[in-house]
Amino acid sequence: MRDGRGSPMMALRPIGRLRTPWASCADCPRNGRLPQPVPECRVEVDAAWWPALAGLDGFSHLILLYWLGPGPDPMPLRITPRFDGLARGVLATRAPVRPNPIGLSVVAFAGFAASGVLLMRYLDCVDGTPLLDIKPYLRTVDAEPAATMGWLTPRAEP
Amino acid sequence: MRDGRGSPMMALRPIGRLRTPWASCADCPRNGRLPQPVPECRVEVDAAWWPALAGLDGFSHLILLYWLGPGPDPMPLRITPRFDGLARGVLATRAPVRPNPIGLSVVAFAGFAASGVLLMRYLDCVDGTPLLDIKPYLRTVDAEPAATMGWLTPRAEP
Repeated sequence: MRDGRGSPMMALRPIGRLRTPWASCADCPRNGRLPQPVPECRVEVDAAWWPALAGLDGFSHLILLYWLGPGPDPMPLRITPRFDGLARGVLATRAPVRPNPIGLSVVAFAGFAASGVLLMRYLDCVDGTPLLDIKPYLRTVDAEPAATMGWLTPRAEP
Repeated sequence: MRDGRGSPMMALRPIGRLRTPWASCADCPRNGRLPQPVPECRVEVDAAWWPALAGLDGFSHLILLYWLGPGPDPMPLRITPRFDGLARGVLATRAPVRPNPIGLSVVAFAGFAASGVLLMRYLDCVDGTPLLDIKPYLRTVDAEPAATMGWLTPRAEP
């Protein structure tokens, strides 16, 4: 596929969907670890991709990428988080308003409920969100437990 | 933008590019922490997005999403990693061949060299790779230092 200028287009295709208890953005928790108890969520992968899931057993955590959908147009370059009185660049936040609205969650993987149905905790997005990618979480390159959190330091309590 | 069936398209736009020492995929390290010494890399963000970077100071680590480009067509659903004799589903690997070719790196952020130019370590992709997103790394939701690594356990040595 090419755009009007003849450049190859960067187009995505959903490969499944995320099933969560939250029907709208307003219902979603600020992050998926906050609800008590943390609910079990599911990811349903379309059957065409089931062979691509082979080998996920034994990973305790996964990284999910998903489509957040278009935000306001034009999109703001800065937002003021609810809990903070200061405007922050959207790329210095995890807000869903982004130049490319791709969401990312590190989730705890609890195995398969059926073919193509993955059980997990820590999702925080709307039910039905389109799934784009599943990556195995690798503690060797993904875990930085001593990372500093800049303006979000006051939110770093467990 | 809509596709031929009238569905809203999931289209991405590059917001900058990654500058690394590696001219081709064959030159890239298996992961960005392996080269000794680890080279300093840069990310150049297009000027239109500079206001969106405000607030990144003080984060020691970032998550970058970038476009890996189209792979073989049709794409394989399983691949056999070089160091492993067994076919694995692509979604159980971090290989660049994926249903949606979005790459992810957790990088150490060393500050700005100039407006829109970020210094970092641990990139492992080809020079010129299109940047899609920058997210602040949050140890509270992204760090899982005890995660298990399934079939990649033998590669979990530091």
